[in-house]
Amino acid sequence: METTNVKAYGTKAPDAQLEEMTITRRDITAHDIEIEILFCGVCHSDLHTARNDWGGTVYPAVPGHEIVGKVTRVGSGVTKVKAGDFAAVGCLVDSCRTCDSCKQDLEQYCLNGFTGTYNGKDKHLGGTTFGGYSEKVVVDEHFVLKVPANLDLAGTAPLLCAGITTWSPLRHWKVGKGSKVAVVGLGGLGHMGIKLAKGLGAEVTLFSRTPGKEKDAFNLGADAVIISTDESQMNSVKGKFDLIIDTVPYVHDVNPYVGTLNISGTLVLVGYLGGLEPILNTVPMILGRKSVAGSVIGGIAETQELLDFCGQHNIVSEVEVIPMQNINEAYERMLKSDVRYRFVIDMASLKK
Amino acid sequence: METTNVKAYGTKAPDAQLEEMTITRRDITAHDIEIEILFCGVCHSDLHTARNDWGGTVYPAVPGHEIVGKVTRVGSGVTKVKAGDFAAVGCLVDSCRTCDSCKQDLEQYCLNGFTGTYNGKDKHLGGTTFGGYSEKVVVDEHFVLKVPANLDLAGTAPLLCAGITTWSPLRHWKVGKGSKVAVVGLGGLGHMGIKLAKGLGAEVTLFSRTPGKEKDAFNLGADAVIISTDESQMNSVKGKFDLIIDTVPYVHDVNPYVGTLNISGTLVLVGYLGGLEPILNTVPMILGRKSVAGSVIGGIAETQELLDFCGQHNIVSEVEVIPMQNINEAYERMLKSDVRYRFVIDMASLKK
Ligand SMILES: [Zn+2]
Ligand SMILES: [Zn+2]
Ligand SMILES: [Zn+2]
Ligand SMILES: [Zn+2]
Repeated sequence: METTNVKAYGTKAPDAQLEEMTITRRDITAHDIEIEILFCGVCHSDLHTARNDWGGTVYPAVPGHEIVGKVTRVGSGVTKVKAGDFAAVGCLVDSCRTCDSCKQDLEQYCLNGFTGTYNGKDKHLGGTTFGGYSEKVVVDEHFVLKVPANLDLAGTAPLLCAGITTWSPLRHWKVGKGSKVAVVGLGGLGHMGIKLAKGLGAEVTLFSRTPGKEKDAFNLGADAVIISTDESQMNSVKGKFDLIIDTVPYVHDVNPYVGTLNISGTLVLVGYLGGLEPILNTVPMILGRKSVAGSVIGGIAETQELLDFCGQHNIVSEVEVIPMQNINEAYERMLKSDVRYRFVIDMASLKK
Repeated sequence: METTNVKAYGTKAPDAQLEEMTITRRDITAHDIEIEILFCGVCHSDLHTARNDWGGTVYPAVPGHEIVGKVTRVGSGVTKVKAGDFAAVGCLVDSCRTCDSCKQDLEQYCLNGFTGTYNGKDKHLGGTTFGGYSEKVVVDEHFVLKVPANLDLAGTAPLLCAGITTWSPLRHWKVGKGSKVAVVGLGGLGHMGIKLAKGLGAEVTLFSRTPGKEKDAFNLGADAVIISTDESQMNSVKGKFDLIIDTVPYVHDVNPYVGTLNISGTLVLVGYLGGLEPILNTVPMILGRKSVAGSVIGGIAETQELLDFCGQHNIVSEVEVIPMQNINEAYERMLKSDVRYRFVIDMASLKK
């Protein structure tokens, strides 16, 4: 198979800095779309993969799965977009397409394992997939999204991971006008959760461990901010929420949040992979038919739905645009939560 | 307020045996129904309340909330039943009727606290409510159920607690034809879970810790039995179930069951009130959008729906009928799970 060399930014070892490197992209097949990457969001998963925090990273690794760009070439069978269109790619570039999940547009739950945009098994070239910290990407059209013309491109990039990760549970648990939604944590995911829940017509509350986030939260659309370490504030929202989206990425006690769920309410974890400590108390769950659930990113149709919704409501992520060369510094700042609320790489910087 | 003395069986202290005693029942008000109790099921909650296992028991205590009987008198405003009709009373005899839960027919989740059939606050006479181990009971018509004429009365009694406790989650999580349901534990709740899930058209699997339950499970309608301590059997049902009803009343590891949930599946705890140990692993929950939930008994409209469904499908509980005088022995046997699958007291024995 023909390939093209493209510039990228990646890392060769868990403890190495990211640096410029050359990777190969396949030539387009009949159903492929070649995209010149204009912006790429910086997700916590990028950092964890680069540093092999979860194990399983294959080096060299090129992160990036919040990709927005311009279509440069399309295969003969492609109908979704044409050269010159803006397009986007999220966390998935392939899946089996035949399992029960894939048939229901739930590619994120592909029973045979989806192909991640980076560090996935490349079915075309062998080896691993390389992500969006690069000049170009070639993706099957099924996994390419269309970008509404009115959206700011840099602010659109984070919709592809941070956005869909909060959108999918909002939709699955049927949030709409009159719903009472809370978001735990005000980071990349949390700030999108507030904007999207508000866009859907919900009453939105932010849970924050410390004061100081009120102004930002209200600007993003929150109706209230509750300091989760203040018992009287927590009591004031007892039994209130239909859905709580918990974006906190480290181990934490979810029991106090369960107490703020309404009858039949659900707390959905989207950020923390691990054991639930301290242990979950089933008493309020049983006596109030409450659920604790998990959710990961979203399917392709649902991601397009999100982009279209954001186009209609003019919703994008709050971003700080950086040049590719600043990625290592950006990772350090991300670890300190020093970003409002997502770094997005201006890929034009890679051409320099 | 006028009262009548009636014979009952109750206990005066946590460590005392149950014995015959006299309690009072109020005279019927305009919306009350007086019922001569014919059968009363024996629930684990009866035993735990009698022995103050959960704290809060007021003595003397008269248990029993699986009540079936014959209407003897009705108040002037009663339209639901007339004297001579068969009627039933479950776990609730009152609730606030005005909160959001009550307005949605979810009296079991009354935000102001429902009135339990026993050991609840008696709004009419003061003191605590006395349950179905007695000759008669007087209950507001809203909390009285109609009993389909074709059902065996003794077998109907356990529908009022064991039945509705499994029916409510089956309905809430929309089990129907083609659903794949598993039941954990084959006791009073579990055997009803199998019958009701099967009645709704689901494919039903029993999880059991030890072999030997197969024949009974198949007779009850199960399509399969999986030994939960056998790893290869557990692997054979990985990712299978839409809903798991976990009836186990003591602390146990639910993580292996979560692994057998299908994408978007729910494990609902109906038996165990306490901390989830060992700790719940969120990884499969997030990567498969799985939920762990709780549920308690059911609302009044839902209980009537259950009784009507059982009438149509001729479903009753498997019971061992005992005289009132054998209740202390029955409790000891219940503690050893030595009952198939529910003791039901023939209240005629109390007349002797
Ligand atoms: Zn991401
Ligand atoms: Zn698939
Ligand atoms: Zn009961
Ligand atoms: Zn109420």
